[in-house]
Amino acid sequence: MTLRLYDLAGAEPDRRFSPYCWRIRLALAHKELAVETIPWRFTEKAHIAASAQKAVPVLVDCDRWIADSWTIANYLEDTFPQRPSLFGGAIGRSLTRHYSSLADGLVGSIFPFIALDILHHVAEKDRTYFRNSREQRVGMALEAFVADRDNKLPAFRASLVPMRTTLKVQPFFGGERPLYADYAVFGAFQWARCISPFALLEADDPVKLWRDRLLDCFDGLARKALAYDV
Amino acid sequence: MTLRLYDLAGAEPDRRFSPYCWRIRLALAHKELAVETIPWRFTEKAHIAASAQKAVPVLVDCDRWIADSWTIANYLEDTFPQRPSLFGGAIGRSLTRHYSSLADGLVGSIFPFIALDILHHVAEKDRTYFRNSREQRVGMALEAFVADRDNKLPAFRASLVPMRTTLKVQPFFGGERPLYADYAVFGAFQWARCISPFALLEADDPVKLWRDRLLDCFDGLARKALAYDV
Repeated sequence: MTLRLYDLAGAEPDRRFSPYCWRIRLALAHKELAVETIPWRFTEKAHIAASAQKAVPVLVDCDRWIADSWTIANYLEDTFPQRPSLFGGAIGRSLTRHYSSLADGLVGSIFPFIALDILHHVAEKDRTYFRNSREQRVGMALEAFVADRDNKLPAFRASLVPMRTTLKVQPFFGGERPLYADYAVFGAFQWARCISPFALLEADDPVKLWRDRLLDCFDGLARKALAYDV
Repeated sequence: MTLRLYDLAGAEPDRRFSPYCWRIRLALAHKELAVETIPWRFTEKAHIAASAQKAVPVLVDCDRWIADSWTIANYLEDTFPQRPSLFGGAIGRSLTRHYSSLADGLVGSIFPFIALDILHHVAEKDRTYFRNSREQRVGMALEAFVADRDNKLPAFRASLVPMRTTLKVQPFFGGERPLYADYAVFGAFQWARCISPFALLEADDPVKLWRDRLLDCFDGLARKALAYDV
């Protein structure tokens, strides 16, 4: 039976914009596993209640419900060991764990640039939920939260120096070919371009060139997604 | 013939405080390789001229001079493949490269807290060189540069969230046992404690607990160093 993935969607069902779901979309492609994605909205908690989680990604494999991107990645690696490895062995898996943490941090760093753009793309029924929950988190209106984003951009780009340093000397974090470490970090950038026309990265930034290489992976899986050309 | 390592030292020959040299000290211990460390001062560029570099670490293996911590780590891995691996294979090596970049970034993040403390510990003959080169880099007197460090501390600690997240779920970046990824990042914290009484980390911070585990590695190699008890 085909795997199914609950995948965050906007007002347009094809606008898939969860940074965490993108990690898994690419991990599934890396494992050469077919998947049926199910568009899911923030307020459809009941649809994924069987996962005991309130957020996606949630993977359904027959009667198993698996939530949380890192847990799902490990499930895929362990359930399909004969498929291409996401981690490159036990040590690779341990070393990859921190990329997941770094990617989570990156989601937090990017949010102040795209928070309002997200609001403009979420499903009508998600709007109040999204605005209220996020405004409570950041302590102000989303309009005020993003108002200063142009001035924050240099600091954001400067924060990518370590990433830039690495990606100048090798094409992917995983080396010559991408691994889950790449997909984890890429998810944050793909999230941004799926939901916002704001140009986070300069055209000649090695980080953008790496992102673009990942857009081309798996027959352009991520590039074909409904997104902005930034 | 024993390996020799040019190792940055302060006014006291036993005060060894290069974050990059500490990476290699632990890498050598991991490889179970004896080393003779040679105290080196910033202004002794001529002593390491054969390396074609102006900074340490510089490793001397018979007539070979190897500079730059990442290059040295790779040299050790390739030259002593039968010894415990620093990377855990080819993929591990690729995944580790970014830890070296992250560690370089961390050195930059810690510098505003300890810059003046470094000046107070460098050799007399290094003082003018150190002050002038660093003040030119930061664009102000070192005293002014560190004056506000207490107020900068919360942001620094917040920047460690990804690291904290990872080290809450596994004892080392490398997993159950430390690898070069750990030594690279650890070097920055060991640098700080070798040169400054300033407490960068709270006592119950998982990052500090990880750092303390590394102090205990290799029969307490790093803990035995001349340093502050922070």
